[in-house]
Amino acid sequence: MRIAVDAMGGDNAPDEIVSGALEAIELLDKDDEVVLVGPQSQLLSSFKKLRSRAGISIADAPDVIAMDEKPIEALRAKPKSSISVMAKMAKLGQVDAVISAGNTGACVAAFQMRMRNLEGVNRPGIAVVFPTFDGPVTICDVGANIACKPINLYQYAVMASVHSKNILGIESPRVGLMSIGKEDAKGNEAVKKARELLRNDPNLNFIGNIEGRDIFKGVCDVAICEGFVGNVILKLTEGLVGGLFKAIKHELMTEKLRLAMKFKPIMQRIYKKYDYNEYGGAPLIGINGTALICHGSSKSRTIKNAVLAAKKYHTEKINDKIVEYLANTSFQTSSQNEKI
Amino acid sequence: MRIAVDAMGGDNAPDEIVSGALEAIELLDKDDEVVLVGPQSQLLSSFKKLRSRAGISIADAPDVIAMDEKPIEALRAKPKSSISVMAKMAKLGQVDAVISAGNTGACVAAFQMRMRNLEGVNRPGIAVVFPTFDGPVTICDVGANIACKPINLYQYAVMASVHSKNILGIESPRVGLMSIGKEDAKGNEAVKKARELLRNDPNLNFIGNIEGRDIFKGVCDVAICEGFVGNVILKLTEGLVGGLFKAIKHELMTEKLRLAMKFKPIMQRIYKKYDYNEYGGAPLIGINGTALICHGSSKSRTIKNAVLAAKKYHTEKINDKIVEYLANTSFQTSSQNEKI
Repeated sequence: MRIAVDAMGGDNAPDEIVSGALEAIELLDKDDEVVLVGPQSQLLSSFKKLRSRAGISIADAPDVIAMDEKPIEALRAKPKSSISVMAKMAKLGQVDAVISAGNTGACVAAFQMRMRNLEGVNRPGIAVVFPTFDGPVTICDVGANIACKPINLYQYAVMASVHSKNILGIESPRVGLMSIGKEDAKGNEAVKKARELLRNDPNLNFIGNIEGRDIFKGVCDVAICEGFVGNVILKLTEGLVGGLFKAIKHELMTEKLRLAMKFKPIMQRIYKKYDYNEYGGAPLIGINGTALICHGSSKSRTIKNAVLAAKKYHTEKINDKIVEYLANTSFQTSSQNEKI
Repeated sequence: MRIAVDAMGGDNAPDEIVSGALEAIELLDKDDEVVLVGPQSQLLSSFKKLRSRAGISIADAPDVIAMDEKPIEALRAKPKSSISVMAKMAKLGQVDAVISAGNTGACVAAFQMRMRNLEGVNRPGIAVVFPTFDGPVTICDVGANIACKPINLYQYAVMASVHSKNILGIESPRVGLMSIGKEDAKGNEAVKKARELLRNDPNLNFIGNIEGRDIFKGVCDVAICEGFVGNVILKLTEGLVGGLFKAIKHELMTEKLRLAMKFKPIMQRIYKKYDYNEYGGAPLIGINGTALICHGSSKSRTIKNAVLAAKKYHTEKINDKIVEYLANTSFQTSSQNEKI
């Protein structure tokens, strides 16, 4: 398969991106190819290796969309940006997957516009895997859709369950719906209506409402929420883990330097064990294709893992399984249900 | 002043509540009084001390609203519940403050119904103080209002700023508006409109949008969000801290038991330092009175601290300061602005 990687996406582009792509091709099959999308002349002059390396090629995209640009305006103004170019390549079937650590809003907009949604899917969502003490928890959506309808939340549950089962190997993923209390009466209107849809689908392992604390308690494998809430969850987790490690380090350093030195490798091991970079980016799930969005601060390891994750997503035919699932439920027609 | 404490509220009632109340009166002034609200005969027979102790009395409330009851239905069915009785006492001026670790929804509904809102305030919000490495951050709302209008978010900023300045001693609290990106274009409609209101008020130290990670980065003293998001933030933080400590403990225990023993007191110190129980419950800010809502798992220390916090809230005339602030801005009339 051919996997496009945005060479200019993220805070550490292009160096870490190119390194990640080079690492990835060592682990792919011989007939696989990584296509770096970015300014060809710049990439070739900066990375001599790229000229001769088998399994890697460059698709020219002279423009770059910055991390803080307004997505829609930037896509309109820069049709030759790496994000625009890779989306078009996917649309034309020139690549089988797209990966970017660039402007998330621009990625979501471009991929959705060019690649379109899967049959039966109303809105795609970004699914992030949190490594927790009790195993991986898939959270969807974390920012693709901040005006969520009940049908969107229902479909996130379906799609994230298919992902959890086929990518993470969890046989019957327990699905929790993020709310502000476990009782049925808790939550806003979208949550309450989504709960009815979820409850009425016997093929889902729906466990009901969950609360913020439940993500790290091993009660669910999939957590469903609208994009605003999911985005806050994602970034809060990142900030809190960082803040807590900082507090521990400070406490150790001020009083017991020797103890701090002993503790350092253990902290590093924990950090690595629960590092979501291991999962290599988050699929934009529900799109008609394979699209992974990586953290803006991605280093080569994340990009390498994202390439491998894209391959698995494609090989496991996640999209076919989603389409098949939705075709066999009573909520299959996207146009009919846009109002739910 | 007279402070009513719900003797039957929370998972550890009445034992921990009564203990907390007894601890608190030792630290109050002579003319202060704690009024325990609950089933009089049961309390008197279980806690002999209560008969003779000066500074503490009992107001009879034979019914109890359970933690998982539907708030409105429960309040209707149980007019003699501790929450209902204390709300009525506050309304009649028989007590100056109310404190409960019971059913949050029932507390919010009862207090709002009986005590009414402060002049100029459209909706009260629950303000929780997070102790972070860089100092306390006040988050409002964490669950009183899950259908937030822009004017509500604006007023949360005003009220939490007054609280942060007068209770926590932060001279010009930096206010951040929770969104999914720092750029102006990010966020849902309520957030975008609230940003305009916040920006147009020169008396607020508004720093713009913040993201989930910023709460623990020392960039703001006040974080504003709608109740659903705030509730997820509150509970996620609780769950994540617990989960991370569990992971660290596990990692230490499996490999280096001696190191684990050395590390234990440090962890306990960190836990205590960043323990939000220190702040003793969260004020329902914007209500015409003093009302504190405590975590359902509150122990005596939290209740003791809540009593002291209620005293400070009352003494510092937080409500007068909020009313004065709102009267001097252009958004003062609640009825006019309900549509914003």
